[in-house]
Amino acid sequence: MDYYSKQISELIGELSKLPGVGSKSAQRLAFYLINRPVEEVQRLSDTMIQARQNVRYCSQCGTLTDQELCPICANPKRDQSMIMVVEDTRDLAAYEKTGKYEGVYHVLHGAISPMLGIGPGDIKLKELMVRLQGEVKEVIIATNSSLEGETTAMYISKLIKPTGIRVSRIASGVPVGGDLEYIDEVTLLRALEGRVEL
Amino acid sequence: MDYYSKQISELIGELSKLPGVGSKSAQRLAFYLINRPVEEVQRLSDTMIQARQNVRYCSQCGTLTDQELCPICANPKRDQSMIMVVEDTRDLAAYEKTGKYEGVYHVLHGAISPMLGIGPGDIKLKELMVRLQGEVKEVIIATNSSLEGETTAMYISKLIKPTGIRVSRIASGVPVGGDLEYIDEVTLLRALEGRVEL
Repeated sequence: MDYYSKQISELIGELSKLPGVGSKSAQRLAFYLINRPVEEVQRLSDTMIQARQNVRYCSQCGTLTDQELCPICANPKRDQSMIMVVEDTRDLAAYEKTGKYEGVYHVLHGAISPMLGIGPGDIKLKELMVRLQGEVKEVIIATNSSLEGETTAMYISKLIKPTGIRVSRIASGVPVGGDLEYIDEVTLLRALEGRVEL
Repeated sequence: MDYYSKQISELIGELSKLPGVGSKSAQRLAFYLINRPVEEVQRLSDTMIQARQNVRYCSQCGTLTDQELCPICANPKRDQSMIMVVEDTRDLAAYEKTGKYEGVYHVLHGAISPMLGIGPGDIKLKELMVRLQGEVKEVIIATNSSLEGETTAMYISKLIKPTGIRVSRIASGVPVGGDLEYIDEVTLLRALEGRVEL
């Protein structure tokens, strides 16, 4: 890219490393940033660094948060006896957008995948089992309906069954192979309502 | 977005201000950044700030550069007697990618648009006229083939004609209504070769 001067090329290079940003988009973003007021670029930059440095896992559910406890776990109105197990924070956000789920969550940060060599010990399952020693009435498994998600769901249900706690799986309203994050809210709600005991 | 904690929401908010970044992409980018090593986020952040602070207009052609003179104007192998007039730096980059143009450029930073109230005094036309007092043999007008681009081309050709310098317009190989930035290199070259005197 020698038709751009060094610092512009570097900026385009850094931006094009971002997911979903191709070389055209990176150019567009770079010129956009160069033409914005300094304060605005500084604010974006600061926000990135701050979030990166302060965001960590919620000590209870494992979602990403900038506090010791995430806003959901810290909310006294949420039903702490109902735990929805999801693969990652964006899946949690997808259910939160429906505005109808009143329990809390548990974020696994992955799913069991023999293909990728990810076993039960590589996701936050142990933390889930510890939480079940409290007053938990139901665990709703909302992992993706992919091979990995289903495997994980089966594994968790077998693990929990002996404790006598109710285990359910969100209904098959979620299209097979789909990623929770991209599914519309109506379908997500239907899947929640039609959940079946495992 | 109260299902994300404050710093995550802020980061998503800042990212979604970027052009072409919707709320889903902003979430994806935010989680990507939060999961990258600190040094990587720091490097992206630094590159942005540096480019924003150091990038300015080339004192000769007006393109964006981090030096007093851009790499093209400073290159002794480029033919300084041939000036291609473009609307912005990305259009310049589009022609540079063809690798076949050996002259220099002049970046207008816009086009005349009576609709938007942009007159000849609002783009870098005066700077072009000053350059024509040097040894210039030809001015190639490569503004976009939009209404504004054509208006600008006509205006510039009328302005330069009396000086006796050759004025040409890139050929109509460029599709009408198209934006130079998105046109393939072969078409760009054909348009350059078929340029007609105005």
